[in-house]
Amino acid sequence: MDLLVVGSVGLDYVETPFGKIENALGGAATYISLTASYFTTPVRLIAVVGEDFPDEHYKMLEDHLIEMEGLEIVKGGKTFRWGGKYHYDLNVRDTLYTDLNVFENFNPIIPDKHKKNSYVILGNILPSLQLRVLDQLEGDNFVICDTMNLWIETTRDDLLKVLERTDVLIINDSEARLLSNESNLIKAATIIREMGPKYLIIKKGEHGALLFNGESIFSAPAYPLESIFDPTGAGDTFLGGFAGYLHKTEDLSFENMKRAVIYGSAMASFNVEKFSTKGLEELDQLQILDRFLEFRELSRFDHE
Amino acid sequence: MDLLVVGSVGLDYVETPFGKIENALGGAATYISLTASYFTTPVRLIAVVGEDFPDEHYKMLEDHLIEMEGLEIVKGGKTFRWGGKYHYDLNVRDTLYTDLNVFENFNPIIPDKHKKNSYVILGNILPSLQLRVLDQLEGDNFVICDTMNLWIETTRDDLLKVLERTDVLIINDSEARLLSNESNLIKAATIIREMGPKYLIIKKGEHGALLFNGESIFSAPAYPLESIFDPTGAGDTFLGGFAGYLHKTEDLSFENMKRAVIYGSAMASFNVEKFSTKGLEELDQLQILDRFLEFRELSRFDHE
Repeated sequence: MDLLVVGSVGLDYVETPFGKIENALGGAATYISLTASYFTTPVRLIAVVGEDFPDEHYKMLEDHLIEMEGLEIVKGGKTFRWGGKYHYDLNVRDTLYTDLNVFENFNPIIPDKHKKNSYVILGNILPSLQLRVLDQLEGDNFVICDTMNLWIETTRDDLLKVLERTDVLIINDSEARLLSNESNLIKAATIIREMGPKYLIIKKGEHGALLFNGESIFSAPAYPLESIFDPTGAGDTFLGGFAGYLHKTEDLSFENMKRAVIYGSAMASFNVEKFSTKGLEELDQLQILDRFLEFRELSRFDHE
Repeated sequence: MDLLVVGSVGLDYVETPFGKIENALGGAATYISLTASYFTTPVRLIAVVGEDFPDEHYKMLEDHLIEMEGLEIVKGGKTFRWGGKYHYDLNVRDTLYTDLNVFENFNPIIPDKHKKNSYVILGNILPSLQLRVLDQLEGDNFVICDTMNLWIETTRDDLLKVLERTDVLIINDSEARLLSNESNLIKAATIIREMGPKYLIIKKGEHGALLFNGESIFSAPAYPLESIFDPTGAGDTFLGGFAGYLHKTEDLSFENMKRAVIYGSAMASFNVEKFSTKGLEELDQLQILDRFLEFRELSRFDHE
């Protein structure tokens, strides 16, 4: 099966109490692809950039064997740009600007050879664009989807159509509460799964994550980070680690899904240790395995 | 070793969106003792009540083999009374009234025979009273302590003296942040342990709990409750389960502390399913073990 990642690729300006960075590689699809590439290759990136997209970023993605046949380069166009500022409490961020640029007319095209039998990762983009991707698919595919508060509030109908065709939905706790209109996360999970997703993951930041399927629940711990350097892309990184591990193992059992959640969490913990995608560019397999094992040590207990 | 529980015994009025109850058994020492009694007996209760304290409550405590030699009954006095109202979001409660009554002049006396070699559980009372208890102890004891925002803000100096002599401090996340003046809980834990406690447990409600000792951290999941009937006493119940299990096993290894945290969490999950102490009055050992195992299932994952 192929692994397709659809979403944004952008250039970020990020300011945190620890420093700032300009023209940094960003965008949901970037974080997802880069992270997934540690588990499985090639990751097929479907996105759009302008002619200003720097060569160094292409090179870094190529170095990770990310296949860019589906990356549209708009002649004379400018790449999507986002600027954000985090305050001392890194849970709060101000968006300084969002220049959609070429992303405004993004029309994701799935190459014919990848329309069947693929893992399709729908990064956080307009639900109508996610639907456009789903409409191109044929036969059996496995769809993993992200979304955000803005779409839940403004384009709910489209989002609900996406959810009907989603296998795994990955959202954070505030999104889960908003989508379900229910503050108790366990009840919220039941309501959301009735909307379509067979599997639901609720990310809770410093409190870990919950995985729901059928009657089963898995509670994953959070990695105990003393400081978070740059939280940008943490959710996308989680998604990339989860999807990459699942694609690599091709095992949809609940036991294996748990491991995928831990790999997603582990990768997100690397991501927030450095600015932009820096924390994800030079990892090795041993580091990733070590962190996986740290997660196990953190939450393991035995009966006598 | 003896197990001593020092704290409040009271009569509660509790109102939640699901109903209300009057003259219900309450108080931190009540919840702690009752819970600990499922693990170890006798639990020695050191508290004060008035002559109005109902016979049925004595009887229920006696049925759980709670030893009340240290329970002072003030002739003509009235028992401590507290009234609270929970709103639909059960994380928020209004205190309707707090009538200290006989509790205002509570002077905890540790019987001579229990001054040495005891597990001493200091429920959430004025730090100056906790100090009075500590001053009566002789030789080796193991001190487990609770506190609250009010004491952190108003009697910090006394509290710091208590912490210097505390083995295990059990507080919630907002208390940990307030006490350490640090929002990151991992950093907060380091700061608080420098104040004295060798072991620190931070309770995070629906997000579980964290246990810290030396370089080790354990992240315990929360039981996935769809509805919480009455959250009163959940923290005290956690404390009782933790301390009771530890006292029973007399094993202070980190592995065993983890189990104690899970037993504390399991007992708290029973407590909130019913009003007042009702959820703790008629449990059996199999139910408790089953819930312990549910916690393990909830958080367990393996490497391949």
